[in-house]
This record gives sequence, structure tokens and C-alpha cells, in this order.
Amino acid sequence: MNVNGKPYRTIWLKEEDPRTIQIIDQRNLPHEFKIEDIANVAAMARAIKEMYVRGAGLIGAAAGFGMYLATLEAEKSEDFERSLQSSYDTLKSTRPTAVNLVWALDRQIDAVAAGDGTPEKIRIALDTAQQIADEDAAFCQRIGLHGVELINKISQAKDGEPVHILTHCNAGWLAFVDHGSATAPIYAAHDAGIAVHVYVDETRPRNQGARLTAWELGQHGVPHTIIADNVGGHLMQHGMVDLVLTGTDRTAVSGDVANKIGTYLKALAAKDNDVPFYVALPSSTFDWDIRDGVNEIPIEQRDDEEVSFAEGLCEGQIKSVRLSPETSPAANYAFDVTPARLVTGLITERGICDANETAIRKLFPEK
Amino acid sequence: MNVNGKPYRTIWLKEEDPRTIQIIDQRNLPHEFKIEDIANVAAMARAIKEMYVRGAGLIGAAAGFGMYLATLEAEKSEDFERSLQSSYDTLKSTRPTAVNLVWALDRQIDAVAAGDGTPEKIRIALDTAQQIADEDAAFCQRIGLHGVELINKISQAKDGEPVHILTHCNAGWLAFVDHGSATAPIYAAHDAGIAVHVYVDETRPRNQGARLTAWELGQHGVPHTIIADNVGGHLMQHGMVDLVLTGTDRTAVSGDVANKIGTYLKALAAKDNDVPFYVALPSSTFDWDIRDGVNEIPIEQRDDEEVSFAEGLCEGQIKSVRLSPETSPAANYAFDVTPARLVTGLITERGICDANETAIRKLFPEK
Repeated sequence: MNVNGKPYRTIWLKEEDPRTIQIIDQRNLPHEFKIEDIANVAAMARAIKEMYVRGAGLIGAAAGFGMYLATLEAEKSEDFERSLQSSYDTLKSTRPTAVNLVWALDRQIDAVAAGDGTPEKIRIALDTAQQIADEDAAFCQRIGLHGVELINKISQAKDGEPVHILTHCNAGWLAFVDHGSATAPIYAAHDAGIAVHVYVDETRPRNQGARLTAWELGQHGVPHTIIADNVGGHLMQHGMVDLVLTGTDRTAVSGDVANKIGTYLKALAAKDNDVPFYVALPSSTFDWDIRDGVNEIPIEQRDDEEVSFAEGLCEGQIKSVRLSPETSPAANYAFDVTPARLVTGLITERGICDANETAIRKLFPEK
Repeated sequence: MNVNGKPYRTIWLKEEDPRTIQIIDQRNLPHEFKIEDIANVAAMARAIKEMYVRGAGLIGAAAGFGMYLATLEAEKSEDFERSLQSSYDTLKSTRPTAVNLVWALDRQIDAVAAGDGTPEKIRIALDTAQQIADEDAAFCQRIGLHGVELINKISQAKDGEPVHILTHCNAGWLAFVDHGSATAPIYAAHDAGIAVHVYVDETRPRNQGARLTAWELGQHGVPHTIIADNVGGHLMQHGMVDLVLTGTDRTAVSGDVANKIGTYLKALAAKDNDVPFYVALPSSTFDWDIRDGVNEIPIEQRDDEEVSFAEGLCEGQIKSVRLSPETSPAANYAFDVTPARLVTGLITERGICDANETAIRKLFPEK
């Protein structure tokens, strides 16, 4: 999507040097937009581990390009296979719980193994990395094509008045290669000239909404308003939200949705006020083995300091301020699970379905 | 309640100088505990306006003591009545929407008018100020006595295991003269040796939970944990909350409750998980004329910058950091209304009642 009027992806092969990858360093967004050259496996591992790049789709693409860099390093080493395996291990250890990371690494290992000789292996690794990135972008684009129909229907019912959409956290193009999941229908609507306006939950404690979603919507020209996480219920009570649209980190085959902490509260408010609540996801997010999402999906607890402090721009620098008493403990649950009964529908790359196992399996019969 | 092991109120007559009032300057809590001398009407007006003191009960008490200072100033003036009226106007203009402010000022005007001669008027003004403060503390204490029975019952059902209470914003003793409203039952339980633990919503955007509630609970020794506002639903889904207890800024006679933005979302989660949701209030908070709280209670919108920035301690100083892009607008709705159907009960100074007009009027038949 656009940044400063120019279309970007979150990761790409450097035009001037096909042995280098470029990424958007997301760490200091929205305060600083910085493009970073990634010229070796160690740099890509650091970029994933230290969250220059984050988000399921983007981590997969970064791992894919990381393995391309790994073949370039292996070429210069004494033992190609050993070097490649070592790079695989390095990349795998960066984010232990990211499913897409291991998936992309394994896909590269299998693809490269089929190559005959080092030059072909390198070519295959680059092709595969590009494919992983292109597929991610294409899946998100298809989510957009399906989701935009929902928005269009609401727009027509409102005689073209702006459709107000509430979103939580960042399920935007910054979390993928392009388009995003929850944002894909929004960008598709905006680009098609349908009037939309997005309420962006700031999404404490890490503020991905205020920092990332607001930034990417603003750069692409989509009207939006940042709100505290406490506000969505009030807006829905007063008819100010037409649609809630979020992403998901893991979706049980029953339709229970694990997503950023606080999503469940918005789903409750949507239900209480008859506001449609949709979740957008590429099908790689489905967990085909879990039926009771609330009790079976493990919830990560992160560092308390994310709650005790807030980070932002102060006097030209990124600073962290302590919000609470030093002696007061904090707890930091990173995700919650929204039961399927609160989810109006799932927007996937194959279309929209109800949030239950029968409907999901009908859309994905091969699973 | 206790600060550094010593019992405090939020406002009191200075022991060494009965012509001076002392207050806790709450502006830099929890990072700095500062007691401020207030020796004239202008200083008290500034303390109210600039929120050295805040909270319905405390604003009333500050206005009461302000009028005592007004009589001392009037004594030295050429025209006692004109001076007193001028002080009344000054104090009244500090927080235009605070109901308790005008109530306390009017009560002082009526009381002082009955005095015979300046010395008696001054004595009456001091007595009245003390009465207003004492009554506020006594009402809160009674809320505590009624509410502690709820906590005690849960404690017994849990065989003395800690009772986990979730609260939102600051309805603590810092908002009143002592005890607080939502915190009164908690302090009463803790002081009676009942094991309690409080989940404190940080309460963005002004963070009254992380700043004030956490500080006062910590100072009094009550175990507590600060959480992001997004977390309460997850905790309730997993049986980690036994009771939700909040205050209220205005309660419709129907039982609809206006309180800090986000309260409604916690009430929805409590309902969805069969967790009791109680609201504690002195009866002065009732609005006897409003039945449809959601549609009739006006909701204040505050400065956007409270959402775009966060304030806290950084390198020994209070600093403000920008969280979001400079070009992204924000909206700042300060309150929401929780419909009576989500409220398990109201804890008042006269006892606990259901959240409906019949039950409320039964407890307050004179209204």
C-alpha cells in the first residue's frame, strides 16, 4: 500500500542489488519511516527477533527471503548443506511460536533440495521466497475482494454515507506483505471509491493500533480516528459503528478466534448492539485440531513492563515513561479468545463463511 | 486510608494553623506524594480547577473548606457579604459540571447566613466544612460496611482463598475524603482480615487506575495487579475474577450507570461469564429525573491529546510521549453508560439494592 504517495510492500528484493533484501523497519513507526538493507542471514535473524518485521504473513516472507540469503552464504562456504542447515536453525530460533516461520523455512528446504547444483539451488530459493511473498499478498488481496462486498452492501444501505468500521490491533499490510487481513477489505473499499472511516483501537499495552494501523491507514489516505480501547462499546451503543473487523492469530476449526487481548470485549459489545463482527484471515491461520478455543488455545503472557510503561516520541526521541507505581505489579496477557457464537463470519481467501466447523470445512474440504 | 503507614484523608484542617487547609496534591501521583497548604480562596480554586483534587466527594469537601477560607477573607474585607459572594462565584466557576461543588457551596451560603456576626459565621463555616467532609467519609464507610458482606460471602464460599475483584478507574479514597466508593468494601474486607486481591484496569486515556487506584491500594497494603483495559474479559472467561466493583459518576433512577469509559465493556464480560457486577455509590450520585441513561445522560468529550499522548515518569521527571502519528485524529469520550440489565446491584450508604427504580425508591422513599 502507499507510503508518502508511493506503493510499498513490507519486504522486497533490492532493485539495485539482487543479493540484498529490503524491509521496512517497523520498530520506530509511526515516528520514523526507515528502510533497512538486509544482506545476510544474521541481519535477517535479528530483524525477525528484534521485531523490525512482525506479523504472521511478514514473518513467513522474511523467513523465505532469509533462506535465499542462506543459499548465497552457503555458496561461499565449504559445505553447502551444513551452512544451509545452520542458517535454518538460526532463523528458526528467532520467534519460537511463529507457525509461519517454520512453515516457510521447511518449504525452502524442500524446494532447494530439488535443485541440481548450487546456482540452481540459489535460483530456486529466490523464486520460492518471491512466491511466498506473492502468495501472501495475493491471499490478502482475495480477502479484500470478498470483504469489500460486505462494506459495499452497508454503504448502499446508507446511501453512500461513510461506513464506520472498528478495528483492533494491527491486522494491516504491515503484518503481511501487502493489503493486510482485516484492512484488506477496507483498502479495497477505499480504492473503489466507497466512503469508509475506521475507528482504530489504540490496543494497549503495545499500541499497535495507534502506532501501526493509524499510520498505514493515514499513509494510504483512509479516514480514521484513534480511540482508547475503552471506547468501542460506547460507540456501538450509539450507532456509530457499522462493522467490526479484526484479524486473528489462530482460529479453531469451531470458529473460536484467538486474537489480540481485548478483541473479546469488542465482540461482546457488537453482539449486544447488533453490529456485525467479522474476522479476516488467510486459511493458514486455522488450527484444524482445536475445537474449544477458550480452553485449549494457550495464551502468551508477556513482560509486565509493557503495561507499566508507555513508549512514544518525546523531544525528538523515542522514550519510555513509567505510568504506575514502581511497587505495583502488572500482568500482561497478550491474547484472548472470542467464542464462535459472537463471530458473525470469517472472511478468508476463498470467501466468507459462518464461524462453525461445518461452514469452515465446506470452504476447505481438503482439510 | 494509609500512606507510608500513616492514616490520611484527602483534605483536612492544618493542625498547626487552623486558618489553613491541607490537601494531597494528586497531580503527580503515583510518582510524587506531596501535601499542599491552601491558605486562601484563590489557592483552593486553583487546586480544584487544576485537579490537585478531583472526584465528586473530594470536590464537594474542597468547596466546603474553600467557603470557610472565604469567610476568613470576608472578615478582612470592607463588605463581608460581597466578598463571600465573590468567593462563591470564583469557586463555582472552577469545575462547571461538578454537581457536588455547587451543592457544597450552596450549603455553606445557607449555613453562614444563619450566623449572627462575623465570628459566628466563621465558626459555622468551619463546622459546616468539617461536616461535609465527615459526612462524605461516613457515607463511604457505610458503603464499605454493606459491601464487605458481599466479599465475605464469596470468601467463605472459597474457603478463605483470596477474593479477586476487578475495578475500573479510580473510585477510591482519593476521589472522596476517605474510604472511597468502590474501594470502601475492599478496604473494609482487607482491614477485617479477609484475603482480597484487586485487578486494577489502567483506565486509558488518563490512567486513573494505574496511577491512583494502584497507588492507594499499594499504600494501604492491599494486594493488587495492574492490567490493560483489554484484559478483564479474558480473566473473567477463565474464572479469575469473583466480583467486579466500580464507582459511578451519575446513576439514573432506572439503575443505568454512567461511569468512566470502558465500564460498559466490563459489565458485558461479567454478564457473559456470570460474574457479579456491583456499582458502589453515595446516594448523591442518583439522578432522580433520568430513566433512559444510555440516551439521556450527556457524555463529555475531552481533549484528543489525552489519547494521542501518555504521561509518566522518565529520567526523574514527568514527561509526555506521543503514541500515534501526528496526522492521525483521535476521539476522547470520557464516560459510557452501563444499562441496568447488566448491573447485579447497587451498594449505597443505606444498603444494597437491585438496579431498578422500584428497588432504588424503596431504599430512598423520601425522594
